[in-house]
Amino acid sequence: MQKPVIATMIGDPAGIGPEVIARAWVGGKVHQVSRPVLIGAASAMERALGFVGEKAKIEVIEQIHSFSPDQLSDDPRTITVIDTCAMQETELPLGEDTEICGRATAQWLDEMDLMARDGLVDATIMGPISTGSLKLAGKLDKVVSPTPGESYLVLFTGSLRVIHLTDHMSLRSVCDVISKDLVAAAIHDIDSAMRDWGVENPRIAIAGLNPHAMGEEERKSIAPGVEKAKSAGANVFGPISPDSVFRQCIDGDYDIVLAMCHDQGHIAVKTWGFSGNCVVILGPPYLHMSVAHGTAYDIVGTGKADPAMIENAMVTAGYLAAGRGFPDS
Amino acid sequence: MQKPVIATMIGDPAGIGPEVIARAWVGGKVHQVSRPVLIGAASAMERALGFVGEKAKIEVIEQIHSFSPDQLSDDPRTITVIDTCAMQETELPLGEDTEICGRATAQWLDEMDLMARDGLVDATIMGPISTGSLKLAGKLDKVVSPTPGESYLVLFTGSLRVIHLTDHMSLRSVCDVISKDLVAAAIHDIDSAMRDWGVENPRIAIAGLNPHAMGEEERKSIAPGVEKAKSAGANVFGPISPDSVFRQCIDGDYDIVLAMCHDQGHIAVKTWGFSGNCVVILGPPYLHMSVAHGTAYDIVGTGKADPAMIENAMVTAGYLAAGRGFPDS
Repeated sequence: MQKPVIATMIGDPAGIGPEVIARAWVGGKVHQVSRPVLIGAASAMERALGFVGEKAKIEVIEQIHSFSPDQLSDDPRTITVIDTCAMQETELPLGEDTEICGRATAQWLDEMDLMARDGLVDATIMGPISTGSLKLAGKLDKVVSPTPGESYLVLFTGSLRVIHLTDHMSLRSVCDVISKDLVAAAIHDIDSAMRDWGVENPRIAIAGLNPHAMGEEERKSIAPGVEKAKSAGANVFGPISPDSVFRQCIDGDYDIVLAMCHDQGHIAVKTWGFSGNCVVILGPPYLHMSVAHGTAYDIVGTGKADPAMIENAMVTAGYLAAGRGFPDS
Repeated sequence: MQKPVIATMIGDPAGIGPEVIARAWVGGKVHQVSRPVLIGAASAMERALGFVGEKAKIEVIEQIHSFSPDQLSDDPRTITVIDTCAMQETELPLGEDTEICGRATAQWLDEMDLMARDGLVDATIMGPISTGSLKLAGKLDKVVSPTPGESYLVLFTGSLRVIHLTDHMSLRSVCDVISKDLVAAAIHDIDSAMRDWGVENPRIAIAGLNPHAMGEEERKSIAPGVEKAKSAGANVFGPISPDSVFRQCIDGDYDIVLAMCHDQGHIAVKTWGFSGNCVVILGPPYLHMSVAHGTAYDIVGTGKADPAMIENAMVTAGYLAAGRGFPDS
């Protein structure tokens, strides 16, 4: 079987995206599990190689649809970039939000989505974008935003994996929107995704909403949603006390936790403090990942930025797109 | 200055309380910072010494009001128990809930409260009780239950310290009860307690309720409550994004976090997984602590139970009651 083709969008060219991607690329691990290709400005990658003190040949593909995986080299010292000239070489901001970079990243996000929908690539990764730049360009809507029942934010951090039923929603609204069908749909979606990714009969733990998972929402919505998903064949457990379920996942009792709200999952992930988070946005009809850090303008150009997170995202995408399960299990 | 007198109630005699207390006691650390005394059944302590393979002399005081700190020995091989004969020697259950033990623990809780209110001891610690036994005895009301505005559950686990504005309350009710005055009162109470415990100008971080601390409750209640407390002289910060504030406390940015609900704090504490939690119930007019584990009937009598948590509670009580700050900072 051929290794999957993974497109990584370089993020905002003024941020650390190109630097960390350059270091992850030449490190070679990414090539062991995938055939990587970049989407972005070749000039930004050229500049980034200088920042991190690495040498590599940059090959440019100028049209999305002239791309074929056969063009990709196995050599980590050859970086292939699909560069449709969204940026002019004379315009290469550094360390600040600009409309130019916002417009370019928006175009690259569109191109990446199109390539994945057309089957030109098997999975996509979004490098560190700047919502500031996207706002300046009036293009913030290009970033996929989780919407209950349609798309979900999923975080991976070592053995702790969390999918969020709701994202940026007030707790009061969370109490209102939780329903049997929404819970069952989320379980169906993550169950189906995990099986595609190569996790056999994934063990899915469902967090309750209230202390000790004892409340109205558990009785009326969460438990019935769990039963519905169980009848449909999912290997699902809960509702489980929110204060116990994340530690149980870390300890290997489950493969993933469905959190009812943003902070259940985010408190667990950020407080545990395992380094090397990565993000999946579940919803698009292909594997869509994202790096879990920002543009880090304060250290851009110094070559100091840690490539561990983007490398983890690129390697994980290679495993999951090939249906090989998670790299760390 | 004399070391503070700390009364520890042995917990349910059928559980691991007597064993872990016996091991913590003879370990000697507790005596370095306090003058400890037990409340409970001398016969249970005698039996526990056998379980853990330790030798010590047990001295019995039969009346609460005949107790004086002068009776306490500095020798960790002398265990002083205030035993008012709540249990008969012939009745010593092991590894199960019983009405007898429920009635006895309820009586000991009353005695401990009375002694602290009368100034006979400086602080109290509740060993691992069984709510099952207390229910059988119809005495569950003897356990102090946190009530917003009156009493609060506080957890210490290494550098992560959390006070909970609300405890076993549905999230929907939490949204309803949060108010400026409730937030300001909780800040006042923990600020005042921390100063008594010896923490100078304690840095108190206030968690928001909603994702990124951006919601109606933050604007209408939490931020105004923080401002009110600030005007009254508290060194207070927030509202801060709930997914960041606990990690910031672990990293030393704050001395304690005020969580808005049970699971914000409990997810952080349990997921971080630092061992050696202990508990304060803030509300009684004296320092009232509790051990953070249960009766562990499955291992009772084997001597295997880890005394680290009860020892940590007893040592921490010694520090705080003396106004020496936290032992680990």
